[in-house]
Amino acid sequence: MQQNWFLGDLLAQLFDRRGQLHGKDDARSITELCEALLSAEGEVSGYQLASTVLDRYRALGDDEKILFFKYLNEELEIDAVQIADLAHHYADNRTIESFKALSEAVEPRRQELLRRLNQPTGATQDLVAMRVDLLRIVKTHPDLRRTDLDFVHLLRSWFNRGFLVLKQINWDTPARILDKVVAYEAVHQISDLEDLRRRLYPPDRRCFAFFHPSMPDQPLIFVEVALTATVPGSIDDVLSEQRDPLEASQAQVAVFYSISNCQKGLAGISFGNFLIKQVVTELALELPSIQTYVTLSPIPGFNTWLESQREDDALGYVSKTILAGTAPSEDLRAMTARYLLNAKRKDGLPIDPVARFHLGNGAEVHDLHASADTSRNGLAQSSGAMVNYLYELKSTEQNHEEFAMHGTIAASRTVHSLAGATLLTKPKETTA
Amino acid sequence: MQQNWFLGDLLAQLFDRRGQLHGKDDARSITELCEALLSAEGEVSGYQLASTVLDRYRALGDDEKILFFKYLNEELEIDAVQIADLAHHYADNRTIESFKALSEAVEPRRQELLRRLNQPTGATQDLVAMRVDLLRIVKTHPDLRRTDLDFVHLLRSWFNRGFLVLKQINWDTPARILDKVVAYEAVHQISDLEDLRRRLYPPDRRCFAFFHPSMPDQPLIFVEVALTATVPGSIDDVLSEQRDPLEASQAQVAVFYSISNCQKGLAGISFGNFLIKQVVTELALELPSIQTYVTLSPIPGFNTWLESQREDDALGYVSKTILAGTAPSEDLRAMTARYLLNAKRKDGLPIDPVARFHLGNGAEVHDLHASADTSRNGLAQSSGAMVNYLYELKSTEQNHEEFAMHGTIAASRTVHSLAGATLLTKPKETTA
Amino acid sequence: MQQNWFLGDLLAQLFDRRGQLHGKDDARSITELCEALLSAEGEVSGYQLASTVLDRYRALGDDEKILFFKYLNEELEIDAVQIADLAHHYADNRTIESFKALSEAVEPRRQELLRRLNQPTGATQDLVAMRVDLLRIVKTHPDLRRTDLDFVHLLRSWFNRGFLVLKQINWDTPARILDKVVAYEAVHQISDLEDLRRRLYPPDRRCFAFFHPSMPDQPLIFVEVALTATVPGSIDDVLSEQRDPLEASQAQVAVFYSISNCQKGLAGISFGNFLIKQVVTELALELPSIQTYVTLSPIPGFNTWLESQREDDALGYVSKTILAGTAPSEDLRAMTARYLLNAKRKDGLPIDPVARFHLGNGAEVHDLHASADTSRNGLAQSSGAMVNYLYELKSTEQNHEEFAMHGTIAASRTVHSLAGATLLTKPKETTA
Amino acid sequence: MQQNWFLGDLLAQLFDRRGQLHGKDDARSITELCEALLSAEGEVSGYQLASTVLDRYRALGDDEKILFFKYLNEELEIDAVQIADLAHHYADNRTIESFKALSEAVEPRRQELLRRLNQPTGATQDLVAMRVDLLRIVKTHPDLRRTDLDFVHLLRSWFNRGFLVLKQINWDTPARILDKVVAYEAVHQISDLEDLRRRLYPPDRRCFAFFHPSMPDQPLIFVEVALTATVPGSIDDVLSEQRDPLEASQAQVAVFYSISNCQKGLAGISFGNFLIKQVVTELALELPSIQTYVTLSPIPGFNTWLESQREDDALGYVSKTILAGTAPSEDLRAMTARYLLNAKRKDGLPIDPVARFHLGNGAEVHDLHASADTSRNGLAQSSGAMVNYLYELKSTEQNHEEFAMHGTIAASRTVHSLAGATLLTKPKETTA
Repeated sequence: MQQNWFLGDLLAQLFDRRGQLHGKDDARSITELCEALLSAEGEVSGYQLASTVLDRYRALGDDEKILFFKYLNEELEIDAVQIADLAHHYADNRTIESFKALSEAVEPRRQELLRRLNQPTGATQDLVAMRVDLLRIVKTHPDLRRTDLDFVHLLRSWFNRGFLVLKQINWDTPARILDKVVAYEAVHQISDLEDLRRRLYPPDRRCFAFFHPSMPDQPLIFVEVALTATVPGSIDDVLSEQRDPLEASQAQVAVFYSISNCQKGLAGISFGNFLIKQVVTELALELPSIQTYVTLSPIPGFNTWLESQREDDALGYVSKTILAGTAPSEDLRAMTARYLLNAKRKDGLPIDPVARFHLGNGAEVHDLHASADTSRNGLAQSSGAMVNYLYELKSTEQNHEEFAMHGTIAASRTVHSLAGATLLTKPKETTA
Repeated sequence: MQQNWFLGDLLAQLFDRRGQLHGKDDARSITELCEALLSAEGEVSGYQLASTVLDRYRALGDDEKILFFKYLNEELEIDAVQIADLAHHYADNRTIESFKALSEAVEPRRQELLRRLNQPTGATQDLVAMRVDLLRIVKTHPDLRRTDLDFVHLLRSWFNRGFLVLKQINWDTPARILDKVVAYEAVHQISDLEDLRRRLYPPDRRCFAFFHPSMPDQPLIFVEVALTATVPGSIDDVLSEQRDPLEASQAQVAVFYSISNCQKGLAGISFGNFLIKQVVTELALELPSIQTYVTLSPIPGFNTWLESQREDDALGYVSKTILAGTAPSEDLRAMTARYLLNAKRKDGLPIDPVARFHLGNGAEVHDLHASADTSRNGLAQSSGAMVNYLYELKSTEQNHEEFAMHGTIAASRTVHSLAGATLLTKPKETTA
Repeated sequence: MQQNWFLGDLLAQLFDRRGQLHGKDDARSITELCEALLSAEGEVSGYQLASTVLDRYRALGDDEKILFFKYLNEELEIDAVQIADLAHHYADNRTIESFKALSEAVEPRRQELLRRLNQPTGATQDLVAMRVDLLRIVKTHPDLRRTDLDFVHLLRSWFNRGFLVLKQINWDTPARILDKVVAYEAVHQISDLEDLRRRLYPPDRRCFAFFHPSMPDQPLIFVEVALTATVPGSIDDVLSEQRDPLEASQAQVAVFYSISNCQKGLAGISFGNFLIKQVVTELALELPSIQTYVTLSPIPGFNTWLESQREDDALGYVSKTILAGTAPSEDLRAMTARYLLNAKRKDGLPIDPVARFHLGNGAEVHDLHASADTSRNGLAQSSGAMVNYLYELKSTEQNHEEFAMHGTIAASRTVHSLAGATLLTKPKETTA
Repeated sequence: MQQNWFLGDLLAQLFDRRGQLHGKDDARSITELCEALLSAEGEVSGYQLASTVLDRYRALGDDEKILFFKYLNEELEIDAVQIADLAHHYADNRTIESFKALSEAVEPRRQELLRRLNQPTGATQDLVAMRVDLLRIVKTHPDLRRTDLDFVHLLRSWFNRGFLVLKQINWDTPARILDKVVAYEAVHQISDLEDLRRRLYPPDRRCFAFFHPSMPDQPLIFVEVALTATVPGSIDDVLSEQRDPLEASQAQVAVFYSISNCQKGLAGISFGNFLIKQVVTELALELPSIQTYVTLSPIPGFNTWLESQREDDALGYVSKTILAGTAPSEDLRAMTARYLLNAKRKDGLPIDPVARFHLGNGAEVHDLHASADTSRNGLAQSSGAMVNYLYELKSTEQNHEEFAMHGTIAASRTVHSLAGATLLTKPKETTA
């Protein structure tokens, strides 16, 4: 079997080499090549045409990329008038032929183009990279959002849960993949492989990632887990190099302390929910002693919200003391509880994006901690506070539904009582 | 890495076990479960809901399956009137919001259901099996063809060329997969593993298959190749156990003598074109001595066509002698040439399905042989004649385009002159 | 990593190809080549010299092989007089130099030759095959037993337990390896792969083999296991195709019903003991429901022993009725018990070779069955009787020691009471 | 298959866990356990006894280790008087029985003990580690060299060329193994994984290692290769991070610039010769453009030798200028040529150990370079000079033989003429 995979690679190289020659000799423009790929010719020579288009694309400057995306957006656009006609026709006349005609008309030809581009080895990754460009360009060319919607539609289908593969990342993982973990860690930065060693090597650390079979070197998302004796209240404690690493079999708690999406080109396609669930199951199998699955998460929107509360009658005083760094811990905890439970957007969901993610997965707000992330970033975004979200498999489904339907936020008693605590509205008078 | 795959399986079992329990305890009907999967609940409990739906489906009788497909067909149908409105709106008002609204409306909700079902390990295969049922049922319930179009749309996207993996099938392949080759061989039947040994074990045999990463035990399509010294004119010669197997390094010719699709549930999604091209490249790499890539193919529609020519002035006499088994070889060859070059459907393409496949891939009709397949089936369908289609990489693209655009059939001089040969219109008079 | 293994193979081929050319061009005889390999030249060109010698050897006829072995036996022999001198010297003068001189003198140079031959890919297997020849030739050339002792010495060191790898053989195993299981099954014959399917495919079957990393396609020994509800008393029951296969998780008993050594060239190097122990551990891990590990074994020497008892006062009558096939079951069981417990060789060990193997491993004689193997072979060797040996991990060590030290045979109460049963010494008188 | 390897590991853990318990409960001393392992008991309970002995050994202090090795050395020693008797007997009476008796007597029982210890997973590595201890201890206990000879004898047989596996080390290698490369690099130090990246990642770098199947995480020896356009004359050029990495396909020269043995416990067992040859073959396959295989090697004994030449009439003056760092390059090159070609030990071989290694492999002294290694170590050992040894496959065998038989050193014309250059014997007089 191994031999074949290897030959497959050789083959790809051969094809790719040819593809490049083909590309060099072929006088057609990239859009002409795309038209050829969409035509009958594309059926038989698709592999090479696709290679050529992808090679050409990689060599484009940003201005040319904009033209390329405009081509996708305008030339490979749906014909809305025709769709309206066909839809009327189908409404009146529900035959298979009229359904088929409508089905074909409603899909922009750029979707078929993207599918036909996805032939050579590595093409999936090229298309994901193409979307990274598109997301950058769309900021200044908002019209192109139509094309982005088609990218998302296709990528969501291709990166469907059923095609993802969970793998453990550890010190037996190839260095090439470890490099990606270093590069993509978004929450608590990793400087290099030697720094990563501290996250992967000790017996009380785990890391899991989703991969797609067509991008075997590229993690899509990964989660870092600390195995601990108790629910931790500070990221420094979790990451401390001074700690005595726990034997995995002794752990009571699994702490998800960092979740990072790796592929900007897959923005809007969510994997985190699946990942946490599957990792919980995996850890439950490996380490029966673990009773509690919990996060130690940042509260990114907290300080911004505090700023907005400065003039509030009830909360203004405490907000100012927190922002000034002079508030007692309990006040800080009480305010994070109010923020997470009460600070909502217009749509009724929490302002805090991390809260939306975990509550949307069916977790509950479990506990709150002052002085939990004293890094510059931690102090700046949340005055050093962090939160534990608790994943209890038996209640996630109901929590999720309550949250999705009614915006109800599940929280522990501790958190509820923190949110209900009476707060000072002015400085305590000190007795002379 | 290996460990993780294994754990992945364990995990799947665990989930599946739970899934089954969940399925047993859950009082909801399969369509209620589908609605739940499509709702907010499905986002968080999708894995288990999907497992339950797939388990339930497997246990359904045919009548219930019909109801299930009718539910997909009617309840998860598009709203054509709404589409027409939204299309009008978009035609007048090309905003991203109106495009998005239209995009969402045009996709039947059954497509999203199928994507959400594709979560548990093995789900992709379950969905392919579901389509096998659908194809059977659709014969008596033609309305369901709408749903089948959506299956095809999704499966074509998932089984995109870029996701397929070529593997060599040989005596180092697990027996479980060899069983599939025995079962799926469609052209020249294989009775069991000991019979398969004759197709795989000798040094002058090769077999290649496409696999999809989500169905690792299931070949999608495979091709059997004989390595020979010359272009063969008889399948018996190719398969003869009396032959002296050639050293692979001595071979001049690679003969594709059997191509079999394995998955009925993927009918209408074509892999053969890709497979032949990639196998040519692979063999070219492994065996530089090979100069010629050729098929030895059946001519399935020939005898049926001869029957239709019985009363033809020019061809009637020869047709009758061939059907009677009394025609000389050259007459038989001449008539197969006429059949392949001239017998067309209304759309201008050849009547013969195998011809359509290979000519559509850009091959040419290379040579024709009488007494080439003397099996009962061979005699019944083509009076024992077979054809070589030649794959010459440098001309396939042009051949394909000529064929696709103008219906032009590429053929060798030999074949052209056979097609132009003068034929008797009545018995030769024998001199007394 | 995969790529490297593949390159390793290519490499080997390259070397081997060169080796062959070298062999063809090289005018030296095989013994001259051996001398070169043993000399300084061998240090730098060993790979090619070894390839050439092994190629040459394969092409030898039996007469030439005899000459080759005589060369090993006589020319690469120790110098006993020198050894005696060096041993005296060392006895008087225990310096490291004199020890080293003695160490070097005591090892026949043929051992170093065999080690130097073991360089090219596949050489280990060639050397094992060489011993197969030697074992055949030694029958008529008993002098060569010296050389065989050196083969055994080396192979025992190379096939040391620490280098063996246990693998499960099942339907995911490559067909190439399954072929070996078919070929090597020594106890209950398997006719072909389709027959083997019955031994491997059902959920209540297991098969395990030891492999050596240098012979990855060659099992060394394998054991076939049936998972059952109760201790079986008949091989036909175990192998019956009519049985309803048990779910593995329901099994109470694991029955080792066939153990086969695969490599004649490794005769005298014992793996069976290790294999059974490791398989017990493996099954205990996979299937916690299994309580009992037992064999269902032949009694190959029973009928021969019965013949020798024909004239015995006490046992003659029963022996004759058994051999005549007219004895009741209980008499047959009683006699097998006496045979297994009491029939000893001069060295105090049981006559029966299978008994010696299992008792030597620390098993006990657990139960005896009439009509248990009604195949022609089963009737001929043991009048259809079979035996269960029981492996109880907690007592194997003590059983083994008692057996090894004192020849004590561990047996169940049932077996002891069968052995003590009173037997008729003449036909029962029937009342008129 | 994968599953079984995994189970194999689980199994080992299970056994190992038991082994540890056994070890704790077992009141016997380590030498009593060794005796048990050598006795009949060892045959059946070897796995656990060996685990216990190896566990116990690991926990010993150095004093106890000395006692353990003394036990091996004295108690498991040969009986020289008995050997002398048996050798006499065999000399007089060449029967197989007397040969066998002699064979058994000549092997110290410690060899059998080591073989029986090699049963649990990881035991091979434990035994290699045991020899690391022994080599340290033997320095102060020279008697133990007898035991070391037996270790070497066994390890040489186990680490026979035929059992080694070549693997490429690159950025797809697990970090765990890369750590070993960092730790074992002996020639040009590597500080950490980020430093190693510079040696492995660029397209003009290669690294290959030998592994033994029983120590899959442990490279035995590795070689680092630079692909270059020309034969390099300075290690700084080779390792420069400023260089523009060459495309591998453009390389003309492969430079072996570092070879490191990894296992101190395998000292005296040579792999380097095999490794270089196999890597040459592998690179020849991958990169046909490479014409030249050359080393860039240190000259470790040069400065020491210069010191010894200070008072020499002919060479003293130049030696002193070199040691003072004031000699012109050509003088330095001329002196390294003389040193490598002429400076011999009593046995006629070169003083320089690196020269002995490469010349012994059949390489030739190809070129010499001043200012080639300006590191502190390079200046201290060889005044900054380095040497290229050239591997030309077609002449290595003859070079090796000439070197082994007659001490003849193969060298290029350049080197010969450098060695013959006239050297100043006193300072040049400068004209006023």
